[in-house]
Amino acid sequence: MKAWMFNGAGKPLELAEVPDPVAKPGEIVIDVKASGLCHSDVSALDDPNWSVNFGELPVVLGHEPVGVVTQLGEGVTNLRLGDRVGIPSGPPNVNGYFRDGGYAEKTTAIATEVVKIPASLDFIRAASGTDAGNVAHHAVVTRGQVAAGQKVGIIGIGGLGQIGARIAVLKGAEVYAAEIKKDVWPMAEELGVVRCVEDVRELTDVGLDTIVDFAGFGTTTMGAMESVREYGRVVQVGMGRLVFEFNSNPLIVRQIELIGSMGGGVEDLSGVYEMMASGGLDPKITTTTFAKIAEGLDLLRQGKVRGRMVVDMQNGI
Amino acid sequence: MKAWMFNGAGKPLELAEVPDPVAKPGEIVIDVKASGLCHSDVSALDDPNWSVNFGELPVVLGHEPVGVVTQLGEGVTNLRLGDRVGIPSGPPNVNGYFRDGGYAEKTTAIATEVVKIPASLDFIRAASGTDAGNVAHHAVVTRGQVAAGQKVGIIGIGGLGQIGARIAVLKGAEVYAAEIKKDVWPMAEELGVVRCVEDVRELTDVGLDTIVDFAGFGTTTMGAMESVREYGRVVQVGMGRLVFEFNSNPLIVRQIELIGSMGGGVEDLSGVYEMMASGGLDPKITTTTFAKIAEGLDLLRQGKVRGRMVVDMQNGI
Repeated sequence: MKAWMFNGAGKPLELAEVPDPVAKPGEIVIDVKASGLCHSDVSALDDPNWSVNFGELPVVLGHEPVGVVTQLGEGVTNLRLGDRVGIPSGPPNVNGYFRDGGYAEKTTAIATEVVKIPASLDFIRAASGTDAGNVAHHAVVTRGQVAAGQKVGIIGIGGLGQIGARIAVLKGAEVYAAEIKKDVWPMAEELGVVRCVEDVRELTDVGLDTIVDFAGFGTTTMGAMESVREYGRVVQVGMGRLVFEFNSNPLIVRQIELIGSMGGGVEDLSGVYEMMASGGLDPKITTTTFAKIAEGLDLLRQGKVRGRMVVDMQNGI
Repeated sequence: MKAWMFNGAGKPLELAEVPDPVAKPGEIVIDVKASGLCHSDVSALDDPNWSVNFGELPVVLGHEPVGVVTQLGEGVTNLRLGDRVGIPSGPPNVNGYFRDGGYAEKTTAIATEVVKIPASLDFIRAASGTDAGNVAHHAVVTRGQVAAGQKVGIIGIGGLGQIGARIAVLKGAEVYAAEIKKDVWPMAEELGVVRCVEDVRELTDVGLDTIVDFAGFGTTTMGAMESVREYGRVVQVGMGRLVFEFNSNPLIVRQIELIGSMGGGVEDLSGVYEMMASGGLDPKITTTTFAKIAEGLDLLRQGKVRGRMVVDMQNGI
């Protein structure tokens, strides 16, 4: 089969002919029908520090594949040939890092770590949910425990934050956004956000139950702990600046819960697919082709992509 | 009645004759039978920065009183005259800060915010549990959710940490301690701690479910987040150093919960009284008399008190 191989930072992504994968016990092989392109692949290609995230190289890149089950390994009973499945991005078995990934005609997964795609959801949208949707759902719902009737703050209305805000709205929360770029505010309001501010501290009087920080600069973390209600919850998912000056006074005196969030699992992607199938969650998507994957990543590198970019492989490569 | 009045930092505690308190609606008056002395009273007397913790001055000092109910305010139905009760230290209605406190013949409380003392527990031990016991229980049980079968780390085996470690043992946890002073280790082991180390990072391989940091220096906070298991919980109660360099990488990547804890409530003091009544929790106590309260605080100031110091007022002042 054809596959785009990652050989390490500083080296070009290479289109190669490699053997078809075979399903080990407990695993499946899928024919990839669509595969999302992610900015973290650009980081992997450009930044040698990212090598710690990878297993053995070379590896087929791409951690956002969806497709049709075409092989069942020994002992697999939860799936059938022909099932349409998506693979949630997230440790420890993530494609494109520790096993061959989604920029290929076929890929593998652990059978119990995939999610069936609802009949009303097409492959392109399903692929767009595997990473950004999955990660945002994990932060807002699984780690943030956002539920109907809560007041929720979202810091950073970028790619992840937009989806996070929309997921909180769909969960029935009253959602506020802190985003320094005012030109994004109208879009946030279209998603159902009731009020946008520049700095989360402006929301102190609201009594927010939970704040999810998709930016992750030290100032946003501290601002969130100071402005969430007493006994409130702050979810840290953004990694804008990892090392910063911390003051534990609000954490202790206001009895805050500061919760780390990373990746997402089967339950998160299932939640995303439900929201997508019902039409409530509908992220912007740009499509491209298998042959143009390296080119697509270059567009991401240049910041020229609007919404998620997805490779359409429904009619082959 | 006689009462020890706090007039502000830098001024001596003053023994005065003041009017007896009267129970407002929803409140009770208790005849104080014992009252714990706390090092934070020394801080109040010495450090002008502590003034932010107080309401109007002068106020009767002392936030660890227990006694017998002698007046019921309008609408109080959960208590009877003659009930033996303890008042948990902790916001927002804490005696000795925002209402007159326990260094007096009588004091008041909100009727629903006191705890009945079990028959087998004497007033002296009951007083010793109202603050240190209460705060340690809140950190370990209410905020830390420590339960049977868990592996728990306690950082700092000082006054609070000793009680916290013992509470975790009584809850059925396997308890480890990180304490730099090795001369404290044998005492920790007597409390039921299975292993003592100097630095919490030495416990990384144990797979601790929860670490409660009673020290609260930045290094202990970071050490706890690095050495607790993935998805583990770190409770921050110690305030040894509030401002420090934070690295959110372990918080996010290891999906830690960092939980602030302060004070404690009725459910905490109830838990402490159960443990004391059964004999499992038995902190060291030194007693003194009402007349010697200022002197007792001076002994605390000089670090000359072993265990909790409690004023015995069972036979009057």
